[in-house]
Amino acid sequence: MPDNYLALTPESLPERLYKIKEIAGKVGTDPNSWDVAEVGDGNLNLVFIVTGDLGKVIVKQALPYVRLVGDSWPLTLERAFFEYNALIRQEERDPGVVPKVLYFDSAQGLIAMEYLENHKILRNKLIDGEKVDGLSEVLGLHCARIAFKGSDLYMETKTKKSDVSLFEKNIELMAITENLVFTDPYFNAEMNSNTEGLEKIINILRNDIKMKSCVQNMLRKFASNTETMCHGDLHSGSIMCTNDQTRVIDPEFAFYGPMGFDLGMLLANFLMAYFSQEGHRKTSEQSDYQSWISTIMKETVEHFQAEFSALWNSARNGILFPKTLFEDQGHSSSSALESFLNSIWSDAVGFCGIEMHRRCLSLAHNADFELIEDTKLRAKLEARNLLMGRDLILETQNIDTVEKLITMAQDYNSKDVL
Amino acid sequence: MPDNYLALTPESLPERLYKIKEIAGKVGTDPNSWDVAEVGDGNLNLVFIVTGDLGKVIVKQALPYVRLVGDSWPLTLERAFFEYNALIRQEERDPGVVPKVLYFDSAQGLIAMEYLENHKILRNKLIDGEKVDGLSEVLGLHCARIAFKGSDLYMETKTKKSDVSLFEKNIELMAITENLVFTDPYFNAEMNSNTEGLEKIINILRNDIKMKSCVQNMLRKFASNTETMCHGDLHSGSIMCTNDQTRVIDPEFAFYGPMGFDLGMLLANFLMAYFSQEGHRKTSEQSDYQSWISTIMKETVEHFQAEFSALWNSARNGILFPKTLFEDQGHSSSSALESFLNSIWSDAVGFCGIEMHRRCLSLAHNADFELIEDTKLRAKLEARNLLMGRDLILETQNIDTVEKLITMAQDYNSKDVL
Repeated sequence: MPDNYLALTPESLPERLYKIKEIAGKVGTDPNSWDVAEVGDGNLNLVFIVTGDLGKVIVKQALPYVRLVGDSWPLTLERAFFEYNALIRQEERDPGVVPKVLYFDSAQGLIAMEYLENHKILRNKLIDGEKVDGLSEVLGLHCARIAFKGSDLYMETKTKKSDVSLFEKNIELMAITENLVFTDPYFNAEMNSNTEGLEKIINILRNDIKMKSCVQNMLRKFASNTETMCHGDLHSGSIMCTNDQTRVIDPEFAFYGPMGFDLGMLLANFLMAYFSQEGHRKTSEQSDYQSWISTIMKETVEHFQAEFSALWNSARNGILFPKTLFEDQGHSSSSALESFLNSIWSDAVGFCGIEMHRRCLSLAHNADFELIEDTKLRAKLEARNLLMGRDLILETQNIDTVEKLITMAQDYNSKDVL
Repeated sequence: MPDNYLALTPESLPERLYKIKEIAGKVGTDPNSWDVAEVGDGNLNLVFIVTGDLGKVIVKQALPYVRLVGDSWPLTLERAFFEYNALIRQEERDPGVVPKVLYFDSAQGLIAMEYLENHKILRNKLIDGEKVDGLSEVLGLHCARIAFKGSDLYMETKTKKSDVSLFEKNIELMAITENLVFTDPYFNAEMNSNTEGLEKIINILRNDIKMKSCVQNMLRKFASNTETMCHGDLHSGSIMCTNDQTRVIDPEFAFYGPMGFDLGMLLANFLMAYFSQEGHRKTSEQSDYQSWISTIMKETVEHFQAEFSALWNSARNGILFPKTLFEDQGHSSSSALESFLNSIWSDAVGFCGIEMHRRCLSLAHNADFELIEDTKLRAKLEARNLLMGRDLILETQNIDTVEKLITMAQDYNSKDVL
């Protein structure tokens, strides 16, 4: 940690930042008129809303430890560096979706960025039963653009490799995923917790050698397949929405990884929202909202595939599947595209199943389930989620369309599996 | 290029290097008694044998261009840095197989290393019909140890990722492979050449959209799957042997790539030696020597799999397939190992087929075929090699054992395909 690092407080923030013109230009130059609120509800960082005469900014600062756990789990500030680097690449690859960066201070692990007026964390909207117009389009296009434009289908290979070299240093955050997502759920790890009543299901998972091998094959891809820059943590807590706008935040877990990773994580979080609905609203309202979530999943995948295909045809300028070998010889690359999309999809299905497990068994559970106070009900819903996750991991090759995934969710949703 | 870089000559070498104690200690301290011969027959570098009162050393120096092509194709000296870094890792992961490094000078792109007494390039032995005792054992164990110990099955993930970050900068040499191996053979690239009479076969390859897509999927793995440190150019010109000793040299193409890459390249070069025998010796001697090559291929794969399995069981200390999830829970990991080995094998088969193509169609052909002066005979043998390469690429999943690969070679060897 740099010697002069000092965590901000609402009290110290105005005095420390008012001279920075990129911030003062948005908030106002008089620190005495600044109003500061700490609003971080994530697992790692401090987040401040700074309000002044001119407007608002967000100031996010890395802490030298994992906030969720405390200073017994130290963590360097470098994640702010990777978040900053990811944000500027995401902005370039899909303009207007991530918050604009105003200022970055590496030594303080600090990023000042655009305040998203009237936006609410998507997870909370899913818990509250609120719909968002255009959600699937923004997310589908975003995942496709990020996947395609960070890869050897698009980038100059020199640039891509030096970017891989850079992000390969985001070691600590990748290690968190490697442990908490891919490993801890499948044994009795120290930081695990689970809802009472799930023991039978947990035994099924931990005794399934074939499934655990599939999970490790997905870890093999996570740890070694550097085909594109992923957000790395694209759950519904990393998305903010109004009723018709959608933005993506918090890419500190960014890494070069498999193209299907973000899409899989995202679908898992929609599925968990789907399965948890019974804990949040009246029976009469559940099915309408669950249908809406299903539609969002379906459309997100459709938008992803359509946009990826459009980019394949119009912007395939990298070393992979070069036009010299296909179109320039009068040969269609459409079957190559189809099998490429299938490979992304099957990776997404596998990662989706794993994310569904870890959010109920490892550290860092989802509010979707956690807010359900009736633990018997919660266990019932989590059990459906866990067993469907297992099917996704084991039957990745058979679940070859998003429609099949949705049908499977509908089936589990009416099944008593405990 | 560093300002003070100067290519060595046999005349200037003694004066320039005699003060370096690591070299003088092996050769002798009096530069006037040094005898220097330039013996580089590779495509990229200068190689000197330096002989003195005490003994011999090899001095290898990178040129600022591709030697095979000339200064119209500039190349930085950094490859010497990567060769040095690869050599020390290979020595650590499989002691005694690569030449010992005596001295490294980054600015001069220069490595002084152990002279391999009485060793001859394996390719020349294969052309001359000479057998080597213990060849398959050294190569099979070496490939297994390098594959296993450079991966997340063995290394600490932190160390592995920072190594990936380092080698990801060996951009120029990876680009050579990406172009010359995976791309150029499949279109009319400027630097291509081929034996007259192969046009029909070349048309089959270039019009096979499915095969070209498979090749690009293998390029996708080459460019993005960083699962272990590969030699990167493990052909029979990168292996030196006496009649019972085997050493591996020249890892300047080292990169973090797929575990099956080196094995596939190696098998391809044995297959090309196999197919070219008719051009090098009497009919009566061919079949005995071809059987010997087949046995070497079979045993190399068997040694690889046995050693990889032994390491899996005794030294699996990385994040992948951790014992906490298998053995510690009383669960066998043997079926996971089997599918892991299958995935390495199928990658090897795909890379093998591609290497068989590029060595007859792109730049940098193999002496195995090139030394056959009768171009009609050469075309006949290369045609077998090219069509078998295509089968390997298209039928990777069906060629699930080395025995099937050898049977296929035997079939092609007696087939008139032109």
